[in-house]
Amino acid sequence: MCQGFKFSGVASGLKKNGQKDLGLIYSETPANVAGVFTRNEVKAAPVILDMQRIASGTCQAVIANSGNANCCTGAKGMQDAISMARWTAAKLDISEEQVLVASTGVIGEPLAVEKIQAGVPELVNALDSNGISDFAEAVMTTDTVPKVVKQKGNLAGKSFTVTGIAKGSGMIRPDMATLLCFVMTDIAAEPELLKEMLLASTDRTLNRITVDGDTSTNDTALLIANGLSGAVINSDADRKAFQGILDTVLMSLARQLIKDGEGATKLVEIVVKGTQSDADAYQIADTVAHSNLLKTALFGEDANWGRILGAVGRAGVPLQPDTIDVYFDDVRMVQNGMGCGKKAEAEATRVLKKPEFTLTIDLKAGNGKSTVLTCDFSIDYVKINADYRS
Amino acid sequence: MCQGFKFSGVASGLKKNGQKDLGLIYSETPANVAGVFTRNEVKAAPVILDMQRIASGTCQAVIANSGNANCCTGAKGMQDAISMARWTAAKLDISEEQVLVASTGVIGEPLAVEKIQAGVPELVNALDSNGISDFAEAVMTTDTVPKVVKQKGNLAGKSFTVTGIAKGSGMIRPDMATLLCFVMTDIAAEPELLKEMLLASTDRTLNRITVDGDTSTNDTALLIANGLSGAVINSDADRKAFQGILDTVLMSLARQLIKDGEGATKLVEIVVKGTQSDADAYQIADTVAHSNLLKTALFGEDANWGRILGAVGRAGVPLQPDTIDVYFDDVRMVQNGMGCGKKAEAEATRVLKKPEFTLTIDLKAGNGKSTVLTCDFSIDYVKINADYRS
Repeated sequence: MCQGFKFSGVASGLKKNGQKDLGLIYSETPANVAGVFTRNEVKAAPVILDMQRIASGTCQAVIANSGNANCCTGAKGMQDAISMARWTAAKLDISEEQVLVASTGVIGEPLAVEKIQAGVPELVNALDSNGISDFAEAVMTTDTVPKVVKQKGNLAGKSFTVTGIAKGSGMIRPDMATLLCFVMTDIAAEPELLKEMLLASTDRTLNRITVDGDTSTNDTALLIANGLSGAVINSDADRKAFQGILDTVLMSLARQLIKDGEGATKLVEIVVKGTQSDADAYQIADTVAHSNLLKTALFGEDANWGRILGAVGRAGVPLQPDTIDVYFDDVRMVQNGMGCGKKAEAEATRVLKKPEFTLTIDLKAGNGKSTVLTCDFSIDYVKINADYRS
Repeated sequence: MCQGFKFSGVASGLKKNGQKDLGLIYSETPANVAGVFTRNEVKAAPVILDMQRIASGTCQAVIANSGNANCCTGAKGMQDAISMARWTAAKLDISEEQVLVASTGVIGEPLAVEKIQAGVPELVNALDSNGISDFAEAVMTTDTVPKVVKQKGNLAGKSFTVTGIAKGSGMIRPDMATLLCFVMTDIAAEPELLKEMLLASTDRTLNRITVDGDTSTNDTALLIANGLSGAVINSDADRKAFQGILDTVLMSLARQLIKDGEGATKLVEIVVKGTQSDADAYQIADTVAHSNLLKTALFGEDANWGRILGAVGRAGVPLQPDTIDVYFDDVRMVQNGMGCGKKAEAEATRVLKKPEFTLTIDLKAGNGKSTVLTCDFSIDYVKINADYRS
């Protein structure tokens, strides 16, 4: 258990279906905090508010709602975000500046903030160190399952815990941060260090995933450390140990997010290697991961490797097509830019039937490497998003 | 009728369903020619061959096949493309260097070139000045209708004709050229001038459309001028007149292509204005036109303008969200970054039910402007592309 943290989630009526839509994270003592936020030029009110408040480096609570993104909502939207924090602070008897806010859901509709106001007392009363799944449910939108992960570590004989919660299923193509992601730890660390570690970790994990190429207006990832375990980051070795655990936590959440991508039936790891630089590899992996033609073929379980090469070729990286190999897991489907025949295709098709697999694209022209996680593109993705607001 | 041009299309057996799959364009006299080709690093064999041959500035015939892209097919693929031209040239009794080649269809499968060899005599015998629709059918893949356009012009008392034919439905996100596009004219013009005019025109038309964001490996656009009308481009005014007609022809084909986009039910013109530069406007229009979230909402006839602002914000152009207005045709749905309410939404929803409409995004921060044509993203797009090869 992550010491000193409590969680809750209740139904305030924002979601039409009566499911949980209001969540709270609370630390018994003020905690250090770092955050990364969407780089979308259109930012939701709670994102703008958090970016201001997080400059202090501390917070003690986070209130989050689903069912409404509180984005493109003008002056009222900002006032609503501030009110959400104020009501929460009053009930918790802490400073309102110590409360951060996160929202997710439809963009552009006024927030029914009176429902949130009415829900706050019950929300605070429900706080419990075992309330994680209630909170995780309360931030779900088109998610079909809550996303939670826990990891334990040890520094100088003091054991500590890192707990991560995320939500997100569509509008997933993070840039700097992603969706809503909350990481709690009872380790002690300064805000600057937390921020460096969070940035390093998101760059390797949450910024390497895509469902549909659309960067959200509400992306927020917070790392909150209250120090109550007694474990302290004192050395480079400590830092490295904690960074490893943080990477594991965020990569687990990243995989859970893609596995639950809107309409997704496959989790596919796109590995590009043999490029002249890591940046080139990333550019190719990112382009392949966004190819709607490939993603629909993955849904159809069709080993249509021509679409992979088509996407590789339009990534903007100069290359020689006749050096490219492509593997479906360990099945080589393409060698030197040409197909390996019917037998390889039959084996590749078997790989495609798995719920998780790896596509490796080897350009054999250098030591660059990069990985991006993506999912397939199904009929259900279209259904979900054609009818999202109705 | 475009003087001196003949066309034909036959079924050679490349397509499993027995439909026409082999087409020929022939000019009675050697014609000047210009071409633009895909910038995909992975280029099909016929593209590579044409890029070499077009340096001469002349051609007299183009043989095209559907059902197989002859891409990622190695040395055999290049030999096959050369053979296609050679057999055609022999039967027409012209130099093989005067024959260009175009292919479209599945990537990565060997071309059944013996079927083409067997089909060439019938193809040449079928040449007819009224054979345009046969040719247009022969280059179709997932297209549901042939795309043809004809325009007449007049220079110094001499009337001339410009005839355009295009194919394409998926893998449409042209870059420099697009899909397969053939423009024939009986005007006289030097190859260099043809190329300048073709580049200018494609940049305003074919390079401003998208179905699915995937740039093809086979994009080819040819402008062939045989001069048989007697009309000659002699002055800047002549050039401007011809350029206008060429723009009209290519824009007509561009609209036909998007209207017949895979699974598309809507043709949507994305107009972005009020930016600091045309380049900024293009970047935003291009991002909006590729947003899967918006495209699925268009399919669902949902005036989900929050997704438009979300896409505008992630385009990489610095902007103030609270200056943005959005119109569905002439219905203002968003003013200064916020929704205009239920009445506007009801009117916007009526616009969404039309088969063609315009989304205008006005940033009110400058005089930049750009337009991109896109289509909606339907369940049928996924079905078509999940099952493409089966």
